Amino acid sequence: MATDLRLKETLPEITEALVATYTECGRTSHLGHKPLPSREAVVEILVDLLEILYPGYGRRQNLHIGNVEYHVGDLIDGLHDKLTQQIARALRHECVPDGGADDQEAVAQEKTVALLQCLPDLRRLLDLDVQAALEGDPVAKGYHEIICCYPGLEAVTVYRLAHELLGLGVPLIPRMMTEYAHEKTGIDIHPGARIGPGFFIDHGTGVVIGETCAIGANVKLYQGVTLGALSFPRDATGKIIRGKKRHPTLEDDVVVYANATILGGDTTIGHHSVIGSNVWLTHGVAPFTVVSLEKPSLRIKGPQTEDLAPTYQI
Amino acid sequence: MATDLRLKETLPEITEALVATYTECGRTSHLGHKPLPSREAVVEILVDLLEILYPGYGRRQNLHIGNVEYHVGDLIDGLHDKLTQQIARALRHECVPDGGADDQEAVAQEKTVALLQCLPDLRRLLDLDVQAALEGDPVAKGYHEIICCYPGLEAVTVYRLAHELLGLGVPLIPRMMTEYAHEKTGIDIHPGARIGPGFFIDHGTGVVIGETCAIGANVKLYQGVTLGALSFPRDATGKIIRGKKRHPTLEDDVVVYANATILGGDTTIGHHSVIGSNVWLTHGVAPFTVVSLEKPSLRIKGPQTEDLAPTYQI
Amino acid sequence: MATDLRLKETLPEITEALVATYTECGRTSHLGHKPLPSREAVVEILVDLLEILYPGYGRRQNLHIGNVEYHVGDLIDGLHDKLTQQIARALRHECVPDGGADDQEAVAQEKTVALLQCLPDLRRLLDLDVQAALEGDPVAKGYHEIICCYPGLEAVTVYRLAHELLGLGVPLIPRMMTEYAHEKTGIDIHPGARIGPGFFIDHGTGVVIGETCAIGANVKLYQGVTLGALSFPRDATGKIIRGKKRHPTLEDDVVVYANATILGGDTTIGHHSVIGSNVWLTHGVAPFTVVSLEKPSLRIKGPQTEDLAPTYQI
Repeated sequence: MATDLRLKETLPEITEALVATYTECGRTSHLGHKPLPSREAVVEILVDLLEILYPGYGRRQNLHIGNVEYHVGDLIDGLHDKLTQQIARALRHECVPDGGADDQEAVAQEKTVALLQCLPDLRRLLDLDVQAALEGDPVAKGYHEIICCYPGLEAVTVYRLAHELLGLGVPLIPRMMTEYAHEKTGIDIHPGARIGPGFFIDHGTGVVIGETCAIGANVKLYQGVTLGALSFPRDATGKIIRGKKRHPTLEDDVVVYANATILGGDTTIGHHSVIGSNVWLTHGVAPFTVVSLEKPSLRIKGPQTEDLAPTYQI
Repeated sequence: MATDLRLKETLPEITEALVATYTECGRTSHLGHKPLPSREAVVEILVDLLEILYPGYGRRQNLHIGNVEYHVGDLIDGLHDKLTQQIARALRHECVPDGGADDQEAVAQEKTVALLQCLPDLRRLLDLDVQAALEGDPVAKGYHEIICCYPGLEAVTVYRLAHELLGLGVPLIPRMMTEYAHEKTGIDIHPGARIGPGFFIDHGTGVVIGETCAIGANVKLYQGVTLGALSFPRDATGKIIRGKKRHPTLEDDVVVYANATILGGDTTIGHHSVIGSNVWLTHGVAPFTVVSLEKPSLRIKGPQTEDLAPTYQI
Repeated sequence: MATDLRLKETLPEITEALVATYTECGRTSHLGHKPLPSREAVVEILVDLLEILYPGYGRRQNLHIGNVEYHVGDLIDGLHDKLTQQIARALRHECVPDGGADDQEAVAQEKTVALLQCLPDLRRLLDLDVQAALEGDPVAKGYHEIICCYPGLEAVTVYRLAHELLGLGVPLIPRMMTEYAHEKTGIDIHPGARIGPGFFIDHGTGVVIGETCAIGANVKLYQGVTLGALSFPRDATGKIIRGKKRHPTLEDDVVVYANATILGGDTTIGHHSVIGSNVWLTHGVAPFTVVSLEKPSLRIKGPQTEDLAPTYQI
């Protein structure tokens, strides 16, 4: 390269100026001896967990009843170490006041084993999600297609893992997990949400499910559905009050079609209700209710005789 | 690590409980000697195909008319083997009743060669898609920017490949391909949709194009557009009737703006029509029609004198 | 493999037909000795830049005040070379008429150093974005969660880098950068947009911010918000007029809720205004205005006594 050496001489200066900002703007730098959980390690853990939850669908093929125990046993053993290490980092970072590094490690190990112990039950729950997908989507050709190709199932699987970890009191990692699923699928489910069995999200891009949502059994959502908050309650000094229920409740057997928005912690959608596409709803409805957009809200002009594109206002 | 060995002793127990669920919930495990197509292999195949379809834009650079034949010939040769192997897996998995493993391999090879043979024509078709993008987007600085940076072109390219494979009777792999594109771009095009030349999707996140859509020539879609189904037709026993046309028809030169939703198998949007942003449409319109939202459906309050955030209901 | 050799004999023929299309459809092939910037290299550069901007949050952990200078200095030195090389490719490709290859290299180096020099100020700006996220989202548990898990911050960070490069006159690479962020986050910010400090996008999937947007300080957007163009102005011959302001202006302290669409270059949303969820707006509003959907535009039927799903029209 024909580099100008005088220009290159400025590099140490730039480095110095940057390092100065690491103390000046300390909150965007993480210096010190308490490393955060590693995003790469968390993703690796998730991939291993998916391999265990859906054996034969992932990396390792030609699994059969004679060899699957070795494969899964090996994965479980490895996950024990990886998860313990990352959970310990998350706990140490949260600075739980009592106890030293070794105690955090011991607590992390307990939480890890607790997560691994719930995997068999989790598989039974996911079985119902797969069933719900097959019943809910006429395009699905079978279980294999759903497990191989449906982003909704992947997002729900990751959410259910993250929700367990959150319940075990693990900080930070649950959100890292659901954000990994969000990145892959466009489906953003907060690990704190409570979601019943037989849950199915079709297509899924743009779905947002807030932290305090409560969703019953056999609920179906389509792409772009937001289950969100109304404006946040604030105290007398204007600060947001944290921890209140801010997101809607969907009872059993509710269907919400594409791009509908349902908002508010007091909004309860009664069981067997159907919320139509593009609906914007900030209050609850009784069971067996159908909500849709009024048709007259469209303006239809035509046939137009001239070329439309140059003059039409989108 | 300061692990508690008593805790670690539970790992074989967890493994055993998991393995028990592999037969109990058999549909979420894939054990046996018929491996599914590998997602990693399918993605590798797609990357090779894109390298052939847009030479010089991908991994390998400094291609020129003197060396490109070697590069492409090598890729074609490798693709022949990789595709044959994965298609054979998909066929075997579908358990086509007659014929043994070798027959499936031979059928897979035929389908592979048929796909490779249509690549030159596919390039001619994609050329029109690139042209449509340049004409449709005033921001585009040239062909290079469209091929390097436009997710819509990537999604359409993958769809056109998947659609060919589906037409050749290859199971599972077409959907794996379009889901790869969906993951990367947020654009979900079912491989079964029929889409004419000169198709352009701008921005694209959240677009869903259903299995039985029919889209004419020179159609343009923006982000968040759903071309979806009304409720699925069911038979007397309540089961979904599969195979019917459930998604809309868009004739030539139709434009659909951001986040519009068009639903139903009998919904035909006449040629040269324009469907405005956020419109929700469940019936067809004549050619040269403009559909937009009525303006009076907004409530506008203000100027407000107090601070809005704490009291405003979103 | 049990391949049929006669079928394999067609591969050279396929290769030849493909190579013929490389000259026939020349715009979708990039042959010659002016390689484009490499997408992989640009992504690697971005990852290095993020490592510098948020030290301790990325790949390298256990950074502390005693070693961070070495780590960052090494990254800056490597970035100098990588960026110079890729910018030189972009400049050469644009065929700036005067000057040979060496001159382009020198110009590229100058632009590279200019970008690196603005990194400390960029960190100060990003510090305000992180602050805005914490204030704007009651779910956020702290800075660490925002930097580790919030896709909105990643998209805004990449946009701010790309915007700087665009201001330095670097072609193609800025758009490659924002498309990388778009792919990861579903947030599509054109590098040409102008965005003030304290910008926060929550959830983010489906957000589109057009090239000529002007956004003030402390603006907050939710998922699915489009800041787009009305139909493009065309000249007498029907060609799109490029370069005009086509996208809206949002003044300071504006909030736009999920899936709202704001269109048009003359559309100015006055400061402290709130645009509600799912609103579609093509004209400006005064400061302190609240815009929301009218409630009566919904049709609510129920309770229904029969099973809804088979008969309901979505």
